[in-house]
Amino acid sequence: MKRRALVSVSNKEGIIPFVSGLVDAGFEVVSTGGTKKAIQEAGIAVTGIQEVTGFPEILEGRVKTLHPNIHGGLLAMREKQEHQEQLQEHHITPIDVVVVNLYPFQQTIAKEDSTFEDAIENIDIGGPSMLRAAAKNHKHVTVVVDPADYDTVLTELKDGVTTETRRRLAAKVYRHTAAYDAVIAEYLTEAVGEESPETYTVTYEKKQSLRYGENPHQKATFYKKPLAKDGSIATATQLHGKELSYNNINDANAALAIVKEFTEPAAVAIKHMNPCGVGTGQTIEEAYDKAYEADPVSIFGGIIALNQEVDQTAALKMKEIFLEIIIAPAFTEEALSVLKEKKNLRLLTVDTSKAKSTEATLTSIHGGLLVQDEDTHSFDEAEISVPTKREPTEDEWKALKLAWKVVKHVKSNAIVLANDQMTVGVGAGQMNRVGAAAIALEQAGDRMEGAVMGSDAFFPMGDTVEAAAKAGVRAIIQPGGSIRDQESIDMADRYDIAMVFTGVRHFKH
Amino acid sequence: MKRRALVSVSNKEGIIPFVSGLVDAGFEVVSTGGTKKAIQEAGIAVTGIQEVTGFPEILEGRVKTLHPNIHGGLLAMREKQEHQEQLQEHHITPIDVVVVNLYPFQQTIAKEDSTFEDAIENIDIGGPSMLRAAAKNHKHVTVVVDPADYDTVLTELKDGVTTETRRRLAAKVYRHTAAYDAVIAEYLTEAVGEESPETYTVTYEKKQSLRYGENPHQKATFYKKPLAKDGSIATATQLHGKELSYNNINDANAALAIVKEFTEPAAVAIKHMNPCGVGTGQTIEEAYDKAYEADPVSIFGGIIALNQEVDQTAALKMKEIFLEIIIAPAFTEEALSVLKEKKNLRLLTVDTSKAKSTEATLTSIHGGLLVQDEDTHSFDEAEISVPTKREPTEDEWKALKLAWKVVKHVKSNAIVLANDQMTVGVGAGQMNRVGAAAIALEQAGDRMEGAVMGSDAFFPMGDTVEAAAKAGVRAIIQPGGSIRDQESIDMADRYDIAMVFTGVRHFKH
Repeated sequence: MKRRALVSVSNKEGIIPFVSGLVDAGFEVVSTGGTKKAIQEAGIAVTGIQEVTGFPEILEGRVKTLHPNIHGGLLAMREKQEHQEQLQEHHITPIDVVVVNLYPFQQTIAKEDSTFEDAIENIDIGGPSMLRAAAKNHKHVTVVVDPADYDTVLTELKDGVTTETRRRLAAKVYRHTAAYDAVIAEYLTEAVGEESPETYTVTYEKKQSLRYGENPHQKATFYKKPLAKDGSIATATQLHGKELSYNNINDANAALAIVKEFTEPAAVAIKHMNPCGVGTGQTIEEAYDKAYEADPVSIFGGIIALNQEVDQTAALKMKEIFLEIIIAPAFTEEALSVLKEKKNLRLLTVDTSKAKSTEATLTSIHGGLLVQDEDTHSFDEAEISVPTKREPTEDEWKALKLAWKVVKHVKSNAIVLANDQMTVGVGAGQMNRVGAAAIALEQAGDRMEGAVMGSDAFFPMGDTVEAAAKAGVRAIIQPGGSIRDQESIDMADRYDIAMVFTGVRHFKH
Repeated sequence: MKRRALVSVSNKEGIIPFVSGLVDAGFEVVSTGGTKKAIQEAGIAVTGIQEVTGFPEILEGRVKTLHPNIHGGLLAMREKQEHQEQLQEHHITPIDVVVVNLYPFQQTIAKEDSTFEDAIENIDIGGPSMLRAAAKNHKHVTVVVDPADYDTVLTELKDGVTTETRRRLAAKVYRHTAAYDAVIAEYLTEAVGEESPETYTVTYEKKQSLRYGENPHQKATFYKKPLAKDGSIATATQLHGKELSYNNINDANAALAIVKEFTEPAAVAIKHMNPCGVGTGQTIEEAYDKAYEADPVSIFGGIIALNQEVDQTAALKMKEIFLEIIIAPAFTEEALSVLKEKKNLRLLTVDTSKAKSTEATLTSIHGGLLVQDEDTHSFDEAEISVPTKREPTEDEWKALKLAWKVVKHVKSNAIVLANDQMTVGVGAGQMNRVGAAAIALEQAGDRMEGAVMGSDAFFPMGDTVEAAAKAGVRAIIQPGGSIRDQESIDMADRYDIAMVFTGVRHFKH
């Protein structure tokens, strides 16, 4: 008896040579709709699905393969006599090879003008049913969802596809149907406004196998969101340099998040997930100069993100020190040729004006997952208050806003000292707030002229304000909200410090 | 014409009252297999699926609902005349309500004695096909996958189920099928040993809606892995106190990871994701004393994890200070009644001896996801070397091992100072290594007697060793591997310091 293959593909890439190979290997090919037409046009013999089911396609193709003659052929266990007898009784031919891929749901919703109805119409029902049935019965059925597997299957068909390959293909099918339904679920869940659903399934596409994770003994992979927008490291274009490492990606993501806070030319240097220097200026060169000056030691081996095109003069300066990555919306040709002289330096372009979109952020813990909104809150005039006797001066306001934009991205407990153009001290990741302030103040050293302080959370008592005052801080920005705020206010007033309460905390861990 | 409901459930919870309600509302109920039997036994009229399909169940039930008479009834668009005519022509009755839940794949693989064949047999094919078809056609069909929705549907049926409810139920169906296939995909992917698949789909079950995320303006939810083992915060039992917050969960997870490193009685205090104090001892009380002494300031408002039952004397000490959470394998009754006097204090039990299992850790970046193995590497005698003239003494070895266990869990750059019972200084999250050492050394102060130093990554030059030596450090443990290791070795030899190279780095960000 001729072996039977069922072929029904939305993505027709490579299908004709593959079907041709199936016929050469002695298969009868059963097909449907557009796939059948394409096979016929290639001059290859093909059996219509209706000849197998004895039932017409109905409901504009919504129902064509959902039939016992198909699913019996997919699901029968060949080694069971009872199954064999039932197939014979109902004149059902076993199907040995299934080649199916699905309606392009994801591509449909990615289109800007697609409607809810378009999306629903592009949910494939028959396809996943065949794929899942064939993959369940992979002991007997070879199921191909990915054109990349056509060659392997054709090669193996001669001696029979191996158990290992059939299992591998079955695993791929369930990954595919899981991903397909995860995208549909996310779309519908958002459409109905469900915010905290009873199950959370999320899917990603592989972007890059990584050499290793945070450490060489940890394996790792970098995935991107199926519908990732421009403006992220997941969609960045790499122009030059070595492959990104796990830690590069994490750091680059942090750098990008900070530089996007600024509309004026800005440069951010990141080291171990924290900003070591942030600078702004009239030009991108000036911004870089300030970011460098902010901490000329820690920037070594760091990552730079900029929000303006990098020109030759800025490039010449960046070339002088060892950097891992430079990220910018663009590089001039001259800048590129300067920087490309450094063989390993990674150069990435990202449209820093895009991707203000908010996403869920995921943090796994052992046995579970924490899902939360991104912290996209920005300085809001409507929410602030000034509880001290003195209001900030205009220059202090500028510096306070800069400090506040940066401190949001520093690991808690976080203190940032800044003037109106740059950070001068960053205290990160401390277990107590005074400790974070001490680190920032020590780093600032003799650069306290015009410096203000930002704190990611309120001061539990007056000691941090006192330490800041003694070091020369003239203004402070912090959430407020401690039951002992008055201590901090009194301390600020005593030293004629202007203090701003934002009403908003920016913990980040 | 009578409206038709299709009912086929694996989980029969609440099904009889629901079906009874459907019949009262004028529905004809079509059912199959065990569900049909249960409905009949309850004395309710029910139509067998074979009467609808005109086709017997075959292949031991593998094929029963995969038939045009069912799927035509599910997928027909009522407003299209062509669809209506085709239904009439083929004598297909529209189906208005679908009640289906699936074979228990997850429960099957959770059983310790389940085989690969058991797993495959418990992949449901017909169920997801019906659910997905009905959910696609939710404009006309009400589809119920969760018994929790029975009441709502019965109530609404009288006046017709609302569009809003039908959409909400359809979204739930795709969440359900996505989750179902994600678990199958994970199982098969692991079975075939695929390590870096082309798509990554992961699913979680809701454990708790959180009041907010890291900050009050961020929404958040806590999910657990479907097959989470004992020994994690996701499966912990809360005996007392307020609900866990987002930051609590993250901190508690970090505390648990550290305390699991120890076999002797140990106590860990965590603040802002970093250990502020770790102590060990002959008893859990002594361990707690040491963890407290390690940093009596930062422990305030912290989280404590212990790896032994908490007794009354230890409880009385912990009660003296403000703590957010105490986690232990158990509490004696006396300890419980002592600690329960603090209304808000959260008390959790977790079996700290379990869950050495490794999981993937997930870190989202904007537009993407980083997936890596957990860092489960432990101190390994086979990998270490001592490049200095002096070998560590026995006491120094004990202290070095303690420092190494802890520094792995401190945010990079990390330096830990420890003696053979406790940490005395923790430098966390710094942009350069000398800075981390300075913080740790300052915290240790006059407690340098017998103190050793652990560093999560190598020293790029000799300066950190020099700073340590001058402060009285007598032994150092670090990965080694810098091109300038010799500077550090020479510096150590100059001060008669014993230094251990582990060959393994423990970055953590």
